[in-house]
Amino acid sequence: MDAKKLAGEKAIEFIENDMIVGLGTGSTVHWSILKLGELVKQGLNIKGVPTSRQTEQLANELGIPLVGLSSIDQIDLTVDGADEANPDFELIKGGGGALLREKMVASISKRMIVVMDETKYVANLGKFPLPVEVTQFGWEMTCRQIKSLGCEPKLRLNNNLPFITDNGNYILDCDFGEIYDAENLNHTLNMIPGVVENGLFVNMTDTMVIGNRNGHVDILYKS
Amino acid sequence: MDAKKLAGEKAIEFIENDMIVGLGTGSTVHWSILKLGELVKQGLNIKGVPTSRQTEQLANELGIPLVGLSSIDQIDLTVDGADEANPDFELIKGGGGALLREKMVASISKRMIVVMDETKYVANLGKFPLPVEVTQFGWEMTCRQIKSLGCEPKLRLNNNLPFITDNGNYILDCDFGEIYDAENLNHTLNMIPGVVENGLFVNMTDTMVIGNRNGHVDILYKS
Repeated sequence: MDAKKLAGEKAIEFIENDMIVGLGTGSTVHWSILKLGELVKQGLNIKGVPTSRQTEQLANELGIPLVGLSSIDQIDLTVDGADEANPDFELIKGGGGALLREKMVASISKRMIVVMDETKYVANLGKFPLPVEVTQFGWEMTCRQIKSLGCEPKLRLNNNLPFITDNGNYILDCDFGEIYDAENLNHTLNMIPGVVENGLFVNMTDTMVIGNRNGHVDILYKS
Repeated sequence: MDAKKLAGEKAIEFIENDMIVGLGTGSTVHWSILKLGELVKQGLNIKGVPTSRQTEQLANELGIPLVGLSSIDQIDLTVDGADEANPDFELIKGGGGALLREKMVASISKRMIVVMDETKYVANLGKFPLPVEVTQFGWEMTCRQIKSLGCEPKLRLNNNLPFITDNGNYILDCDFGEIYDAENLNHTLNMIPGVVENGLFVNMTDTMVIGNRNGHVDILYKS
């Protein structure tokens, strides 16, 4: 049984009629959206808020009604994936490059359900390099300031050219080794002029749905 | 005597041979740059780091050698203006829209000298609306989040269209009334996804040069 599919579909059980639902991006939440499409066809009444063009397209194909970020104040529930998650419900996101939009959606969500397979659930964050979105102007200087925090930043490339985000910025993938104080690092990074946002999600989720290869799904709630 | 000219020229006395000097932007620091140009002609050896295209152009006309942010690690001394400054050496900057570049330069400066006329020196910050640079994507949502902190944000316009910064972002001019905890507000704003940077400069300067209409110049040092 596909662990991602298990987790992705399970999370949809949290969605109720008349909710505004944040729709994440990635290979696990892909299954959530497919399942959600089925329920909408069966009469479930929700509005989705996509975190990427890719998700927007999929939702449109499935007939899931969508609404833009600009016209809403709050999202009832967001289902999104993660590149890593730890037992403190802290996440690293941004492997796909959409961390800013994902963090915006999460920040106005009353509840965020994170879906993943067991390989993403780790004792300590940091094996996955932390994506940091920085302005193009002065990026070398910003890079040096981030490096001085104790990491090895690498400019993300795409066909040998710098990868450019939807917001026209660069991404630095920052290998900090194991991250022991995500909250502090999240603050420190965002206070560096030139840093637009970083991929640490702290105090943003209280529910993680983890699919296992053995067919079991764990649901963890933050106490 | 012009209070701005008095302050602007006085600040140049802090510049020493062989320094890398951050060059701010504005009507007061304009006088600093003119004076610096004279000294360079007389043999002073410095390299300038401009915070705007306007300053870059003026420095070039005056023969002040320049170096880009990308090729330096540290600036010895920066001379820049402010829209407001308080007795705790906290500043509001960004009236000209270049707050990000100015904050980048300040953040790698060993020392920042702030020049102003007496009208900019206030007991409490906040009469000047605080400029906040935000990404175009989702700006209405970011605006609502900033508003919920207790202010009236206004999208800055230019010929009836949104003003766009050098980094392709919008500026929200945020009337918070009197700001009593600039350090906390600085942090809170930068932690909102969608906020790129804000115009509060906290713990960035220890010297303020204030020109008065009566011809006197006050130099304040942070104890």
